[in-house]
Amino acid sequence: MRQSQLFTKTVKELPKDETSYNAQALIRAGFIDKVGAGIYSYLPLGKRVLDKICQIIREEMDAIGGQEILMTALVPKENLEASGRWDTFDVLFRLAGNDQKEYALGATHEEIVTPLAKKFIFSYKDLPFGVYQIQTKFRNEKRAKAGLLRGREFLMKDLYSFHVDQADLDDYYDQAIKAYHRVYERLGLKDLTYLTYASGGSFSKYSHEFQTLAEAGEDLIYVCDKCHVAVNREIIGEQSSCPSCGNKKLVEKKAIEVGNIFKLGTKFSEPFGVRYKDQGGKENTALMGCYGIGPSRIMGTLVEIYHDDKGIIWPADIAPYKVHLLSLNENDRTEAIYIKLKQEGISVLYDDRDKPAGEKFADADLIGCPYRVVVSKKTLMDNGVELKGRTSEAGKLIKLENLAAELL
Amino acid sequence: MRQSQLFTKTVKELPKDETSYNAQALIRAGFIDKVGAGIYSYLPLGKRVLDKICQIIREEMDAIGGQEILMTALVPKENLEASGRWDTFDVLFRLAGNDQKEYALGATHEEIVTPLAKKFIFSYKDLPFGVYQIQTKFRNEKRAKAGLLRGREFLMKDLYSFHVDQADLDDYYDQAIKAYHRVYERLGLKDLTYLTYASGGSFSKYSHEFQTLAEAGEDLIYVCDKCHVAVNREIIGEQSSCPSCGNKKLVEKKAIEVGNIFKLGTKFSEPFGVRYKDQGGKENTALMGCYGIGPSRIMGTLVEIYHDDKGIIWPADIAPYKVHLLSLNENDRTEAIYIKLKQEGISVLYDDRDKPAGEKFADADLIGCPYRVVVSKKTLMDNGVELKGRTSEAGKLIKLENLAAELL
Repeated sequence: MRQSQLFTKTVKELPKDETSYNAQALIRAGFIDKVGAGIYSYLPLGKRVLDKICQIIREEMDAIGGQEILMTALVPKENLEASGRWDTFDVLFRLAGNDQKEYALGATHEEIVTPLAKKFIFSYKDLPFGVYQIQTKFRNEKRAKAGLLRGREFLMKDLYSFHVDQADLDDYYDQAIKAYHRVYERLGLKDLTYLTYASGGSFSKYSHEFQTLAEAGEDLIYVCDKCHVAVNREIIGEQSSCPSCGNKKLVEKKAIEVGNIFKLGTKFSEPFGVRYKDQGGKENTALMGCYGIGPSRIMGTLVEIYHDDKGIIWPADIAPYKVHLLSLNENDRTEAIYIKLKQEGISVLYDDRDKPAGEKFADADLIGCPYRVVVSKKTLMDNGVELKGRTSEAGKLIKLENLAAELL
Repeated sequence: MRQSQLFTKTVKELPKDETSYNAQALIRAGFIDKVGAGIYSYLPLGKRVLDKICQIIREEMDAIGGQEILMTALVPKENLEASGRWDTFDVLFRLAGNDQKEYALGATHEEIVTPLAKKFIFSYKDLPFGVYQIQTKFRNEKRAKAGLLRGREFLMKDLYSFHVDQADLDDYYDQAIKAYHRVYERLGLKDLTYLTYASGGSFSKYSHEFQTLAEAGEDLIYVCDKCHVAVNREIIGEQSSCPSCGNKKLVEKKAIEVGNIFKLGTKFSEPFGVRYKDQGGKENTALMGCYGIGPSRIMGTLVEIYHDDKGIIWPADIAPYKVHLLSLNENDRTEAIYIKLKQEGISVLYDDRDKPAGEKFADADLIGCPYRVVVSKKTLMDNGVELKGRTSEAGKLIKLENLAAELL
């Protein structure tokens, strides 16, 4: 992408009314635009990042057999009455249709996926299966001050699984935990992210959150460094030792909840009547699990964790472009390098603008691509370019003929 | 995909309360699920079709330099007041936030994209540009009986362009028309789709719709067969001859509006104050164009047009899978064929279910993949399979070693 063509621009001033670092940096760098508190549009750079996060999640859901669907944002009142949540779910946006019906905007989708699944479940042979979607969700929050960490409108991947019995649900749940660990590893969050024991509701001893250590986190978790798990504040009273190894020296840390998985049991399948015939012909109620992760919150989390005083430092697999190519008054020569790198399959943001070098350097640091390549009269005299990693102190001269290989 | 793993099933009965063919067929074949009138979830087969339609549109928008973004579904009341549409736009879903603010659900996005663009437009050098999104839209319709042709919640690609003057807008508009023609060609709708002259509002003589001939269409258009354009009902009174060649023999036909492009001029840039400095340093208001196409309506349109009494007939590039592979009690041998075809990069829906042959044939016709491959004791005796195109009367025997080449 030629930066001169990109319709967004970086902004020097801190955005008004924005106290969270992630929103400040993402707005200044042109990744997102604030429409209202907790309501953000994704601009070209931000859309690319969001798509990469979604694709990683999608691949790992597909790998455990998840079938992708797209449910509706409009959830009819009768569905939420069937589950008993129309009156009790405090963050629902409720609205009236011209068809004399009432709807809520989907904050979660058990009330849509459960009656959907019921239509295709008759026998034990139809189970188990998992369906997921990546979709905009809505929560009518009173306050939303944490940028992408807590939105009124945000992106969510939600997976739902259906099972004949507890053993099958437990197996799938363990598979989902492994898939989630792979997701966080690919997102560059492995070391900072803890499987965190939370209260389990009626159907299991625990549910689990995935919590990523971060100063900006709204949650407190209690970490066992021996086995890299934690417990959340909700259960630290009753469970003051590590549920995995018994270690009693748990350390309090701030964290961001980046995922949440839950054994729903028959909480929704019972009211919606999701029943199947077992091998003996007896009717039973199916069991369910649900597994959530928010791509937009992940984006905010990455920015909170990976930045310095100059700007964002994207993990390599998440960055909008791998290379930020800066021409310092050498557009003719740089154009050829841009074309060459693209031909090699390397994604490049090419700063071809008529701007001072200092401004280009500052923008590159703010936007945060993993590699910066500078083409100037000086580097060309040595028949090369300057290559610098975003977090390296200094760059090094690379001969033109070696550049692509160096970046692959 | 192994059909035994697919969580959906085909349904013999016509769905209740569904009078449109497209919704009947898509529900019966397991592509969509009805949540409410005009409100549908996309199931695995349907999601694949929708993704293919979106990808074709995306590629053609990228080809004319469109920059992809994702705007918000929640549109603050003040944005719609600025344009004067809060009180007049009759199909808005309006809702109240817990933040004491009011919102509408986006039915169109001029009120979000215009203030967004304003933030990055200062000089004539910042123009022109085009931004687009593929996003869920909402229209609070009183009635919604046409399946995917008219939804309360539906998918929309909307592109917006920004220009220094009328000539530049006109140029871009003509480019957009060409891009739209390429989209309909790739969707398999070229011959049936007419550039249709519609009323232009204050800023141009005409706007344009793209109308696809179909018995299920809600619109009447007046077609000039000489130059493959049409005029819509709105302007047939004042314009009873072909605006392109003057032909007076226009033929009335039923059609579905599959796209709409419009020169907005300063209708939105004026109230939102999108101004730029021209080369002489003088301030001017930017001009805008908007260009819409609904992927979900396209999906419904394809089904209305391409079907027979047995089911859907997907165009090759839109089909959920290229090949429907049917094992008639020969799963061991068919498994190897399935693996081989997938390795060749051919998308395959593999019917490995324990079902009678007749049911498998009926499902293949209903789902509508372009090729059906049948593996039976009889075909294997000749070391082959039966290959049949969806619209062919009879299949032909293909030797196993030639199958992949035949399908590539």
